[in-house]
Amino acid sequence: MNTQTVGRITDHLAAEDITLQGVLDALTDPVRRSIVRQLFDAEDGMACGTFDINVTRSTSTHHFKVLRRAGILRQEYVGTVKTNSLRRTDLDRALPGLLDAIITAARHEAGR
Amino acid sequence: MNTQTVGRITDHLAAEDITLQGVLDALTDPVRRSIVRQLFDAEDGMACGTFDINVTRSTSTHHFKVLRRAGILRQEYVGTVKTNSLRRTDLDRALPGLLDAIITAARHEAGR
Repeated sequence: MNTQTVGRITDHLAAEDITLQGVLDALTDPVRRSIVRQLFDAEDGMACGTFDINVTRSTSTHHFKVLRRAGILRQEYVGTVKTNSLRRTDLDRALPGLLDAIITAARHEAGR
Repeated sequence: MNTQTVGRITDHLAAEDITLQGVLDALTDPVRRSIVRQLFDAEDGMACGTFDINVTRSTSTHHFKVLRRAGILRQEYVGTVKTNSLRRTDLDRALPGLLDAIITAARHEAGR
């Protein structure tokens, strides 16, 4: 991956402002849970267009924005590609065990 | 507590039908999270009227119904008192770690 960041998205939530309410509101949506699960499984950041989600581009943009504003993922431009990464450290500090429990359950249900 | 059960509420969710979606939908509401946190902290079942929640009776009844139908709590009449208990075993089996993580976070935020 080209690590040169040429632009930043500036409305990320500060780590200390991550709340249970915000994270639950965001992850109550199954498409957003799927995005988070795919990011969790990825070793690296993922470009917006590479997720396996069956929604329009504008819906997808909305979902990424909700996740970003809840403090769940970080988006930055790597070269010209908007790239997503999960804020695992920030989430684990704010809400210990929650992300893991949701991912585990989501995986379990996806495998049913 | 009088353990004679004189009536049962019959629309409880079967343990195997508990879903992540249903539990997240139920626990996204802060009043319902407060009910669950109080039940979690109680050693025994709690009568509906004994929870510290600042809502009308009909709103309270609605919240208990949502929690019951999501498989989160069980309600039964003990004598003439409708009594609530948390379905911890069923929840831990269906969604390992989720309830604990949400309770921990809710406590943490309540203590802020």
